[in-house]
Amino acid sequence: MSGAPWYLDCDTGIDDALTLGLLVAEGADLKGIGSVSGNLSAAGGARNTLDLMALMGRPDVPVAVGAHDPLDDVFHGVADFVHGANGIGGVELPHVGEPVAESAAEMLVRLAHEHPGALRVLAIGPLTNLALALRLDPDLPSLVADVVIMGGAAQVPGNVSAVAEANIWNDPIAAQAVFDAAWPVTMVGLDVTMLARFEETHRVDLASSGASGAALAAMLGVYFEYYTPVLGRPSCALHDPLAAAIALGTVVPTSAPVVPIEVDTTGGPGHGQTLVDLRSRFIGYPPQPGLRHRVVLEVPEGFGDALLEALSRLP
Amino acid sequence: MSGAPWYLDCDTGIDDALTLGLLVAEGADLKGIGSVSGNLSAAGGARNTLDLMALMGRPDVPVAVGAHDPLDDVFHGVADFVHGANGIGGVELPHVGEPVAESAAEMLVRLAHEHPGALRVLAIGPLTNLALALRLDPDLPSLVADVVIMGGAAQVPGNVSAVAEANIWNDPIAAQAVFDAAWPVTMVGLDVTMLARFEETHRVDLASSGASGAALAAMLGVYFEYYTPVLGRPSCALHDPLAAAIALGTVVPTSAPVVPIEVDTTGGPGHGQTLVDLRSRFIGYPPQPGLRHRVVLEVPEGFGDALLEALSRLP
Repeated sequence: MSGAPWYLDCDTGIDDALTLGLLVAEGADLKGIGSVSGNLSAAGGARNTLDLMALMGRPDVPVAVGAHDPLDDVFHGVADFVHGANGIGGVELPHVGEPVAESAAEMLVRLAHEHPGALRVLAIGPLTNLALALRLDPDLPSLVADVVIMGGAAQVPGNVSAVAEANIWNDPIAAQAVFDAAWPVTMVGLDVTMLARFEETHRVDLASSGASGAALAAMLGVYFEYYTPVLGRPSCALHDPLAAAIALGTVVPTSAPVVPIEVDTTGGPGHGQTLVDLRSRFIGYPPQPGLRHRVVLEVPEGFGDALLEALSRLP
Repeated sequence: MSGAPWYLDCDTGIDDALTLGLLVAEGADLKGIGSVSGNLSAAGGARNTLDLMALMGRPDVPVAVGAHDPLDDVFHGVADFVHGANGIGGVELPHVGEPVAESAAEMLVRLAHEHPGALRVLAIGPLTNLALALRLDPDLPSLVADVVIMGGAAQVPGNVSAVAEANIWNDPIAAQAVFDAAWPVTMVGLDVTMLARFEETHRVDLASSGASGAALAAMLGVYFEYYTPVLGRPSCALHDPLAAAIALGTVVPTSAPVVPIEVDTTGGPGHGQTLVDLRSRFIGYPPQPGLRHRVVLEVPEGFGDALLEALSRLP
């Protein structure tokens, strides 16, 4: 795997938990993890992250609590109907370790300065911490290698409204700031993540792997309950893990054009939508000056199997 | 073909001209045609409509001039880069006949009362006249059999912005009024119309049919010029004719779920977008109480051939 240093920003969250597992299993060099309110509060997300990383044998990775409230807004509250009240499907893990004193935004800025030009940023929650880090240090984009986000929807429905995906909808102003900054962003949205699935067979197999796998499989019970009426069968979408796999390079998109991306911050019916300009689709998305963000539109099938294989290697 | 009485609302326009040809060729019982500003001014659209209907042997169909300005807005001006300065690709036709005295909205209301429960409405321009008719007679929806519109985009890019299609973008407030009214609307948007194509071979064949076909083929030169860089080869999309064919029943959609449809009227980046809620896509769009609008997502291939065949029958 990539030997690059990584900063992970997350709202842990059941699919975030799977993502931590994938990153650990793949040996990603995690320099720090920041939490943000989204699936649950930033504090709760940090707690889950610490406990999961300990369970997975990586209690050494520093975890910072990030922003509780979105920019110019207040936290909308835990998505307990998706992730359970504690964010990880009611699974109780031993509490191991404490967050560091710095904020997630401060951690990101520090790590970028410690690894100039090399730090890779993977953000799988609302983008509040990244936007705050950009305010702390406007030179941040020049220090970061790239940003991969799970968020948005280009050609498919949203999941909190007809058009808006939850991470972007939770803090559209922060998302717009991230797209405005002079770093390359890879948007991994619902176009591909809704089609990347864990099936009941995956869950059963995961349950009989190590202790980490068993805990993750237990959490997935709650996640499957949410997704079964959406997908029509017991299964779930693999939002955050797919973004991580694309960042790691273990999943290589078969379509990821570089195109204009804008965020709806109006408060209207499209609030929180990512407006991805795909009008050049019939001519193969020719390069346009000034564009730097790519949107993943297609990935190979079979990610569920690959994720199961990776997670089954966890302790 | 359907023996139903029809009211057509259009902004004639090159693909509107093809649509007039298709309706005439298919023997649609056109009781009246209203014009609206869109591709060009309402007055110019009425002129083109009169002249084309005369050319096609139907000078008897009354044509009413409709709204010049969108609701709460002013006309944005002719789309001459798409349709040429006169709306029909610079083709000069003999001026035959004059518009009737009533407005398009008044004509629509009158026809609905003359054919209660039977009148079918096909609207292939901005929806200003329909919205004005709803203001003139709030009972209008109960008198109209159904409304088919060319407009919007559900899962594909727009054509005037990343997300907005021109007819809706030209008068989003009117479009919302049309979707709010208690009649069933079939939305034929860019999802299907961008894939329905006239190729250079169609155009050449059309040119050697009757006088009407020759005139339409001449107009298509300008339309092809606009579309060639968009589509990557000399060809054009068949927006309005496809909507007419679906209304006539000569094209039967293979996917047209009944789902919530909302219009972005915010003035923000999504202004003029049709927000079509397709979140139930994985479970086959089960019926939901209170919904009455269907969005066409898929049609069989081969409409270009069928349109050529129909237009070649014109005088």
